[in-house]
Amino acid sequence: MKKIINHVDTVLSESLSGLALAHSDLVKLGANHQFVARRTPLRNKVALISGGGSGHEPLHAGFVGTGMLDAACPGQIFTSPTPDQMLAAANEVSGAAGVLFIVKNYSGDMMNFQMAADMLDVDNDTVLVNDDVAVENSTHTTGRRGVAGTVIVEKIVGAAAERGDCLADCKALGDAVNKATASMGVALTSCTVPAVGKPTFQIGADEMEIGVGIHGEPGRRRVPMESADAIAAELVGAILKDLALPTGQRVILLVNGFGGTPLLELYVLVNAAQKILLAADIQVVRHLTGNYVTSLEMAGASITVCAVDDALLALWDAPVHTPALRWGM
Amino acid sequence: MKKIINHVDTVLSESLSGLALAHSDLVKLGANHQFVARRTPLRNKVALISGGGSGHEPLHAGFVGTGMLDAACPGQIFTSPTPDQMLAAANEVSGAAGVLFIVKNYSGDMMNFQMAADMLDVDNDTVLVNDDVAVENSTHTTGRRGVAGTVIVEKIVGAAAERGDCLADCKALGDAVNKATASMGVALTSCTVPAVGKPTFQIGADEMEIGVGIHGEPGRRRVPMESADAIAAELVGAILKDLALPTGQRVILLVNGFGGTPLLELYVLVNAAQKILLAADIQVVRHLTGNYVTSLEMAGASITVCAVDDALLALWDAPVHTPALRWGM
Repeated sequence: MKKIINHVDTVLSESLSGLALAHSDLVKLGANHQFVARRTPLRNKVALISGGGSGHEPLHAGFVGTGMLDAACPGQIFTSPTPDQMLAAANEVSGAAGVLFIVKNYSGDMMNFQMAADMLDVDNDTVLVNDDVAVENSTHTTGRRGVAGTVIVEKIVGAAAERGDCLADCKALGDAVNKATASMGVALTSCTVPAVGKPTFQIGADEMEIGVGIHGEPGRRRVPMESADAIAAELVGAILKDLALPTGQRVILLVNGFGGTPLLELYVLVNAAQKILLAADIQVVRHLTGNYVTSLEMAGASITVCAVDDALLALWDAPVHTPALRWGM
Repeated sequence: MKKIINHVDTVLSESLSGLALAHSDLVKLGANHQFVARRTPLRNKVALISGGGSGHEPLHAGFVGTGMLDAACPGQIFTSPTPDQMLAAANEVSGAAGVLFIVKNYSGDMMNFQMAADMLDVDNDTVLVNDDVAVENSTHTTGRRGVAGTVIVEKIVGAAAERGDCLADCKALGDAVNKATASMGVALTSCTVPAVGKPTFQIGADEMEIGVGIHGEPGRRRVPMESADAIAAELVGAILKDLALPTGQRVILLVNGFGGTPLLELYVLVNAAQKILLAADIQVVRHLTGNYVTSLEMAGASITVCAVDDALLALWDAPVHTPALRWGM
């Protein structure tokens, strides 16, 4: 295992310290690195709090800031954060408008966020993200996994909370965006959790895992390496089958790298995916391309499609200023 | 070789098409993918044109847009673009204020940009970037290599050109920023040029190459893997020795990933580098962290330090809107 770290026990805390240094204008760290919060919380709005295992950077801490999350709770790598982290974050950023948790559908995250919700003494609700169409149930999941579509949910609900939407409206919006969003990924290599020291799974020199999870969980099938066009056809095909969009539907297309695949290849995949969407009479009106929901240094990528109308598009386009996503300000 | 591509002969053109699709509001492609240019060129300002071998994405095409480059000429992977590309780009974006070429110091790039400059019938000049302090002369270079500091030169000169500075002033500014900027990198793995199909160099499972070039050129030495703190000490130490900054100097710190190293680790390196700079009484006033000047999927990172005063800082902070760098708009 070769990584730019000092020690497997300190990699997370040192990385969070680095994030806080690099973006000290936007975010601050909670005590004992329990959470990353907006530097100046706005307590007169619904507080959006997310979190999950680390190793998916910039998710979630990289999306804390104006117009997106109020706080993020980072667990150890590929491990759920604990309820006390969510409570500490909520105490830091929430007010009378309440708290909306945004949680990816993994059993550990679900359980710990639920415990926090039960203990919290302000109004709160939870949006569950389960956009991965690859498989029902998985290594750490009952039902579908939450993957890169989480970024779109956090951005759109973040914009709604920022303009002052109430808790019930933010919750309903989050559910609606999750329902309108579908993703699927492919892995070319595994990744190595620092504390484990060896690759999460084995994969042949000419193989890929179609439908892989963001922790290296098995997908649909292990097949010989195929072309970018064939990969895009399989991923987009599964997504469109799930979403069953009407012709002419407008969508956001997110081509997300898992950490080890260069931007050069991600843009090849954008080109391939857009051809397929165009042939299906689906209209890509916004793009997001890059490493947003990663799996450490895994090579591979996922494609996410989110169906939008004028209202969702306006929320997507609204100003955002976070470490990893920024426009309009 | 596992890559998300269709064919080694079309990877560059398909990737550029994907870039142009994803950022159609900002950029357009020249005929035969000769260049990427601002969608709506402003011919009343100095035209900034850069370029170089591909495989370093988002450099250079990802920095075309408002407040930065007017056009970028992508060569084949790790191969210089040709003079006809620069001439076509100049015809597309330049006016009476002339053209400033920003060129990384590699022999092929130097020769081809010089040929273009000689053939161009508008006023033009060239800023040579050679920020890599690792070695004098190298595989493709006489003198020092141009590496990640190029982003800082392009951003600061881009802001000056956007506000209307003349060609001579932009040239002098670019030279000054280059002189104030120093970089050094480390590779943990090699990378594979698609058309070659095998890794550019071999490196042991517990080794790293200190001072590596962005094409995998040899650096200062091949050593056993060290901690993030030790890596930061060696890179920052070499940079500070080169720049010989006065105590209290304000700097921009760029921690740049080579493509295969996750953001989690880059922030560990930010934390390590800032500790060392603080101990040397150097004041980091701006951060940029991420994959900006890559080497395909190489694992590793570089550190760049640029000394700034109020004037340079104002140009750094000026609004920019490109595919890969955006703030203030």
